[in-house]
Amino acid sequence: MSGAGLAAAGEAVDIAMIEAAAARLAGHARRTPLLSSPFLDEIAGRRVLVKPECLQHTGSFKFRGAWSALSALDPQARARGVIAYSSGNHAQGVAYAARLLGAPAVIVMPADAPRMKIDNTRALGAEVVLYDRANFESREEIGARIAAERGLTLVKPYDAPLVIAGQASTGLEIAEQAAQAGVTRADVLACCGGGGLSAGIALALEARAPGLRLRTVEPEGFDYTARSLASGRRERNAAEAGGLCDAILTPEPGALTFPILRRLAGPGLAVSEAEVLRAMALAFSRLKLVAEPGGAVALAAALFRAREIEGEAVIVTISGGNVDAETFARALALG
Amino acid sequence: MSGAGLAAAGEAVDIAMIEAAAARLAGHARRTPLLSSPFLDEIAGRRVLVKPECLQHTGSFKFRGAWSALSALDPQARARGVIAYSSGNHAQGVAYAARLLGAPAVIVMPADAPRMKIDNTRALGAEVVLYDRANFESREEIGARIAAERGLTLVKPYDAPLVIAGQASTGLEIAEQAAQAGVTRADVLACCGGGGLSAGIALALEARAPGLRLRTVEPEGFDYTARSLASGRRERNAAEAGGLCDAILTPEPGALTFPILRRLAGPGLAVSEAEVLRAMALAFSRLKLVAEPGGAVALAAALFRAREIEGEAVIVTISGGNVDAETFARALALG
Repeated sequence: MSGAGLAAAGEAVDIAMIEAAAARLAGHARRTPLLSSPFLDEIAGRRVLVKPECLQHTGSFKFRGAWSALSALDPQARARGVIAYSSGNHAQGVAYAARLLGAPAVIVMPADAPRMKIDNTRALGAEVVLYDRANFESREEIGARIAAERGLTLVKPYDAPLVIAGQASTGLEIAEQAAQAGVTRADVLACCGGGGLSAGIALALEARAPGLRLRTVEPEGFDYTARSLASGRRERNAAEAGGLCDAILTPEPGALTFPILRRLAGPGLAVSEAEVLRAMALAFSRLKLVAEPGGAVALAAALFRAREIEGEAVIVTISGGNVDAETFARALALG
Repeated sequence: MSGAGLAAAGEAVDIAMIEAAAARLAGHARRTPLLSSPFLDEIAGRRVLVKPECLQHTGSFKFRGAWSALSALDPQARARGVIAYSSGNHAQGVAYAARLLGAPAVIVMPADAPRMKIDNTRALGAEVVLYDRANFESREEIGARIAAERGLTLVKPYDAPLVIAGQASTGLEIAEQAAQAGVTRADVLACCGGGGLSAGIALALEARAPGLRLRTVEPEGFDYTARSLASGRRERNAAEAGGLCDAILTPEPGALTFPILRRLAGPGLAVSEAEVLRAMALAFSRLKLVAEPGGAVALAAALFRAREIEGEAVIVTISGGNVDAETFARALALG
């Protein structure tokens, strides 16, 4: 995170910063429940506990990081406004947090992002600036330029301490809710793009539930985090877009998030698109939840990659539910 | 509720019985959250707070009443087992509660009930006895006969004090959660079939949130509760089955539930099937929830019958999410 006015922007994320973010989020972000189904347990061969962040404000965990960052701004910076670049979920999270906090928001989105996500971001009160992915300017460059011109604070989607600390509040809740469910040793599977959610959860678990181990899950072909964890250095994806799980595709692991994952995460997992669609259908029939493709990869791994997971229980995040009706109907037809 | 072993079966439901049921449910039923979306608020022209009982165990509020009744059985009666008749949601609720409590369960279901509901009930460990709706024996008669033959305790779907007290725990949670959200005066819309959920919520609100008023919502053409509330006596539906909202169709208001509703409920509401399908589509896109048709009637009334509702906020239950993929895809295509 760069730009004026963001406190603690350069600090490493620690449990104190995470607890402070959780305190700012209290009463504003939803405390999502921990769900389960005997039918899913049977498929997975172990208890499956599901943290449905699709039920979070704006339909994904991204609201947590956005609120964490924006609520930490000093009043002058908040009044000038914020800017973010995102293909969807981070955009909506920042737009809604900004609206609730009375801050102007500019969101830089690819012109070919799903129509619904662009419309939702506008409807939440943000100014949307569209860019052509094929253009010479990257979204990072466009964001930095507009931020400088208008004095806006840039809220990065994952490589920002306050954003990671906000996503980490999911991990604090998992630690408490898993203990209440009698689970103290298990893999915790998180849908992974830039790694903000994964790194945040890993840090929270390290401090509050050391028997729970974070593992990343990605779509096959876009599993740079798994490959980076295996090689020990930040590997890149061959493709930057395309594929079913658009919400969690980024070119490489984050500069801040990857060192956290390298230190704390277990081996990364990857699932096929067919497995993602089946997981979406089972979230529909067994949990009554709408999961977007990128938000269903962790559930898919719990259900269909059971032999790659250890322990008598597994905890999974459903990271978002912003999926169009056509894609969802396709998942139901196949599932 | 009849049969041996059910404590308090003849008593009127009061707040002490409701609090006792809630205490038995604690740690077993889910405390569902209270959700919202700025997009739904905009459609309704007021705040819309949604209690998603589709997230309850077995996908509907029915688990609450089933657990309330079964957990109150003495050990001998529980060991002999229970019997219930239901086209779906009560069946699954009783089957799962029985499995968790180690009681055998027999469920009498119509042979033409949705396949998924029959399969789920069996998969939850219950013995399913199918009957032909056109047969001379009613489900009540079949249930009573098998109960007598095998010494089973009959768990009626709504006209039973312990079942009403269990469903009423939904109302206790609404009272607390609405107060936390700053809402103390509002209509509370409940999807209404036999009236167990509606009557239970009405009793809980009377005791714990007297500024909140229960109102029933039914499908048009099956709105006997609304007509009965208007006339002051129990009116019957012309048809007993057919229509989109199969889960909440019963021939007339309950003998125990109707007097409670006549004393406490506001005017009944009714919605069209087209409105139900649109509400299901909006629950999908704005709340990331799967609502079944009968479970979406209250949300439909909040969104599309706003002029028939009073106050700055409205609270709605989504009573269940047990819908097949084809019906759901149809709602998404129309919505």
